[in-house]
Amino acid sequence: MQYTVEVIDSGEKEILKASKGDNLLTLLHEHDYGVSAYCGGQGVCGKCTVVLQPASEPTANDCRVLSDEQLAQGVRLACQVEIGQDLTVVVESDLDINILTDGFDTETHLNPAYEKRVVTLETPTIEDQRDLWRRLQDELAYQRIEVSALRELSDVDVAQPMTLTHQDGRVMRVEAGDTSSSLFGAAVDIGTTTIAIYLVDLVSGREVGVHSLYNPQRRYGADVISRVNYTLEGSQRLQELQSAVTEGINDALAELTASHGIGLDDIVTMTVVGNTLMLHALLGISGASIASAPYIPVFAGRQELRPVDLGLRIHAGGTVALLPSISGYVGADVVGDLLAVPLTDGPGTYDLVVDIGTNGEIVVGSRESLLACATAAGPAFEGANITFGMAGISGAISQFAISDNGEASFTTIGGKPPKGLCGSGIVDVVAVLSRHGFLDGNGTFVKPEAMLPWQREMMSEHKGQPAFMVAADVLLTQKDVREVQLAKGAVAAGIRILLKEAGISFDKIGHVYLAGGFGNYVDPASACLIGLLPAELEQRIVRIGNGAGTGAKKALVDRSLTAVADELCARVRYIELSTRLDFQTEFVEAMMFAPAMAGDIG
Amino acid sequence: MQYTVEVIDSGEKEILKASKGDNLLTLLHEHDYGVSAYCGGQGVCGKCTVVLQPASEPTANDCRVLSDEQLAQGVRLACQVEIGQDLTVVVESDLDINILTDGFDTETHLNPAYEKRVVTLETPTIEDQRDLWRRLQDELAYQRIEVSALRELSDVDVAQPMTLTHQDGRVMRVEAGDTSSSLFGAAVDIGTTTIAIYLVDLVSGREVGVHSLYNPQRRYGADVISRVNYTLEGSQRLQELQSAVTEGINDALAELTASHGIGLDDIVTMTVVGNTLMLHALLGISGASIASAPYIPVFAGRQELRPVDLGLRIHAGGTVALLPSISGYVGADVVGDLLAVPLTDGPGTYDLVVDIGTNGEIVVGSRESLLACATAAGPAFEGANITFGMAGISGAISQFAISDNGEASFTTIGGKPPKGLCGSGIVDVVAVLSRHGFLDGNGTFVKPEAMLPWQREMMSEHKGQPAFMVAADVLLTQKDVREVQLAKGAVAAGIRILLKEAGISFDKIGHVYLAGGFGNYVDPASACLIGLLPAELEQRIVRIGNGAGTGAKKALVDRSLTAVADELCARVRYIELSTRLDFQTEFVEAMMFAPAMAGDIG
Repeated sequence: MQYTVEVIDSGEKEILKASKGDNLLTLLHEHDYGVSAYCGGQGVCGKCTVVLQPASEPTANDCRVLSDEQLAQGVRLACQVEIGQDLTVVVESDLDINILTDGFDTETHLNPAYEKRVVTLETPTIEDQRDLWRRLQDELAYQRIEVSALRELSDVDVAQPMTLTHQDGRVMRVEAGDTSSSLFGAAVDIGTTTIAIYLVDLVSGREVGVHSLYNPQRRYGADVISRVNYTLEGSQRLQELQSAVTEGINDALAELTASHGIGLDDIVTMTVVGNTLMLHALLGISGASIASAPYIPVFAGRQELRPVDLGLRIHAGGTVALLPSISGYVGADVVGDLLAVPLTDGPGTYDLVVDIGTNGEIVVGSRESLLACATAAGPAFEGANITFGMAGISGAISQFAISDNGEASFTTIGGKPPKGLCGSGIVDVVAVLSRHGFLDGNGTFVKPEAMLPWQREMMSEHKGQPAFMVAADVLLTQKDVREVQLAKGAVAAGIRILLKEAGISFDKIGHVYLAGGFGNYVDPASACLIGLLPAELEQRIVRIGNGAGTGAKKALVDRSLTAVADELCARVRYIELSTRLDFQTEFVEAMMFAPAMAGDIG
Repeated sequence: MQYTVEVIDSGEKEILKASKGDNLLTLLHEHDYGVSAYCGGQGVCGKCTVVLQPASEPTANDCRVLSDEQLAQGVRLACQVEIGQDLTVVVESDLDINILTDGFDTETHLNPAYEKRVVTLETPTIEDQRDLWRRLQDELAYQRIEVSALRELSDVDVAQPMTLTHQDGRVMRVEAGDTSSSLFGAAVDIGTTTIAIYLVDLVSGREVGVHSLYNPQRRYGADVISRVNYTLEGSQRLQELQSAVTEGINDALAELTASHGIGLDDIVTMTVVGNTLMLHALLGISGASIASAPYIPVFAGRQELRPVDLGLRIHAGGTVALLPSISGYVGADVVGDLLAVPLTDGPGTYDLVVDIGTNGEIVVGSRESLLACATAAGPAFEGANITFGMAGISGAISQFAISDNGEASFTTIGGKPPKGLCGSGIVDVVAVLSRHGFLDGNGTFVKPEAMLPWQREMMSEHKGQPAFMVAADVLLTQKDVREVQLAKGAVAAGIRILLKEAGISFDKIGHVYLAGGFGNYVDPASACLIGLLPAELEQRIVRIGNGAGTGAKKALVDRSLTAVADELCARVRYIELSTRLDFQTEFVEAMMFAPAMAGDIG
């Protein structure tokens, strides 16, 4: 039995065909609607809401997650809908994306792994019947050649100028004429949620284009563990996850190259960073052994692969280089951060690098010796698990404050009417709540009778919980505050443990490099106020933007940095927090809030 | 307009669909009928005969090539038929193949490039979170691993026995359990006409299976130059030729492995020999620069390739190794011959290696220093360009003699009624004609009046030429004798030039190694009698069968022979006969026949 599903997205209509029993969320994902599904379609995260006409009977999950008002309006979780009749579905795709791709700018030496050379050979004669490849070996000291380049060599007139592309004595491309000014590479940062792709001119060393997209693997779950669980049911599913990410990269590169008037073949090398699980997924390798104790990766060291091994469509004779990871939960993205910053040489002064995403990764030390740990911060700072949380997209409240006269003000991304809260907005709101005594030291909303009148006016209720009204239809509930406490407590405890383990006091820290999209937008004062970062270091915080992407670009442009990355990894000692008895103590302590400011608005 | 073509082959019927104007030969080749086409469908070789019902109007080429009797019987050249109505076609496929795959047996040291090792690691713990690949590197000193092996590594329990397949510190396969007794390689000899494929157990070093097939590229022309010409019309055609040969090899390997209860994946390495043009075609590289002066190959040295680069379906992490070629017309097949024989160390004694196929390749010297040349013998010794010539298949006359009392006797392959002459039969017949004075020293049939009565009885006529009756319906014409003279003259002149250039006299030659299918079946006495080989060396002739295939097998089993092959190539000086003024003189002289025996049957 076939049904018709009319999808309305931002006013545009599309008619899809579906069979009886098809899952609506799967159908929407198959047709590239960017409907979020943090929980991977388990019916718990409440992100895949759609308006259904006719509305279906709500499921238990619908009732648990959605408000009565939503249910009455025909809002349903797409993941809970089995198609059994013709439907009209109103969706609001979140493809309107604004992923951080800017990075910290430091000087990079131009020294790419691939180079071009224009050569001309003498016209072969019957007195010298050496084969064409032998001539290149004899005259230019090459050692190896790709079969595709041999094919190209047979098509050119060697007595005319031709351009060879080579890496370490290996010829991988032969072109007629002088094409020496056209040589490109790509740097790719694969995050759990987003992917950033940079097109780099390897002749000038300059970035010439950037493209970002949601990680297409999101459809299999918002967090890495959901995705690992998805793959446990068969190797076919591992390939699905791999194809999702490689096709996403291929499509993005195709767009980037087309808009720069070059071909995918003109990209000869790619440097990839990402968390360890994302890199496993890119290679089609199960991350199951990372997902559970003792958290062992299948590989962590640097890998140099052929594009065809991964299904990537850059030049087939090129290379895909994965920067090394440190451990199962401190990946090559963090190594990218380390390459991106001017890390102190020590001894005596040290740097702290904090990269907050779904997990928070922390590194402290100098070039000589480093300690690293990972904390399961959860996706609260990415807006997930927060009632009105959302990604940093149009309509998200990104800044919030209460002025001295008690008036609330906020900023939304794109200046659009407020739809929810993104990470930096969440931190600002919690900072305000803590600072002005809405919350006690444990993070519990104080009783209404203990609040001042202007405070009480700002309070409301959501599903029986006290909730703060950030804007007309945007609330932050008690449960949301708990999520933030868990997240900030984990990061803060990680920082404390690392510093203690390294024996480094705050005064020895030169810089706190804050990496990642959240880190780039969060207000350092708010972050310190809620105890996410140590207040003592507030003035030393440097936001480095997408440090992982910057590090990948630097390694792409300067091949000597791959050896530096290897050395850094060898000098990092990874601290597994889950086995430390002191972590729980620090964690519980770090979840608390500082006492509210004296002399509050009254 | 669609037509029906009913094909009857050895009594079996198949119905094919064709469009108006389709070429019948192309249609038959597309459906894998083994109809020969030495000239590549030019209408000149006369090998693609079929019986057509209803018979078409004969073309000019049909009339030139076919006898009146054939034309009356409805015989037509398939390459000349444009389908314009429903047809019934009787074909006689020559897939009933008997390609020489036996070789000369010399001792080989067991030292393959790939080996297996059974290992067990300690169970990973949270105290030691090294990644799995790092453990293999640390404990077993591996340097690289294929991504497919990483995937396999994630699927096994490393604390249980697992089997690693490795080459030079590179892990290319990980299997659970102990599979160390199962490791296979393939040796492949790609000839212009036929391909021989050997399946070799790399644990024992023993050949466990062999498969031979006609080179599927035959449909694009019998000789290499026709095929090169075919490819000149577009790179698509180059890919067609490549796919034809790789698919042929893949299919053969699939059959071989299935019949040995293993998978294609169990073949980890392949050693390939062939003439230089065949190796170019295997790699999808144009041989156009070899086909015309100054005869420059695109590559000649040893190549080590990944199976996926060629479309070969052995283990993707394995290797395809091409032995080196010497020049555009002395290929890796001849290098295989050199590896197959116990070549003298010199100095003072030398060996002569002669490999006769469509071309005749000749090498003389010792391990220390060698001279090589190639002569365009033409395909006469393969039965082509000979009126009743045929391949060495069922029904071919392979031996012929006239007894002392003037009675002719012959042997056919398979003991079947005689249908034509294969190479060894042709040489026997010409030897008889020369020995008994049917031919004068120039190779011209003497006038009937100069023949003895018993001789006259054996003579007939074919298309206005004198012809010798070998059997009831098998003739050898004056034109055929001329073809043999050109072929044997070219080889003999090559041998003379090489010996002269090297300054080696007959008495210094230890062995004459005769390689190739023709060489294996030809009667050495007849070959010397017609002047193909020097009569002085008749007693030193050693037939080595498929020396090229034997050499490939040896290099597969003993990796040290690849270095030996490189060294031999470096020690060979190639003599380009086309530029030598003395070659034409030697050639004309070598085309002659020795005077007939005195005291002939009378």
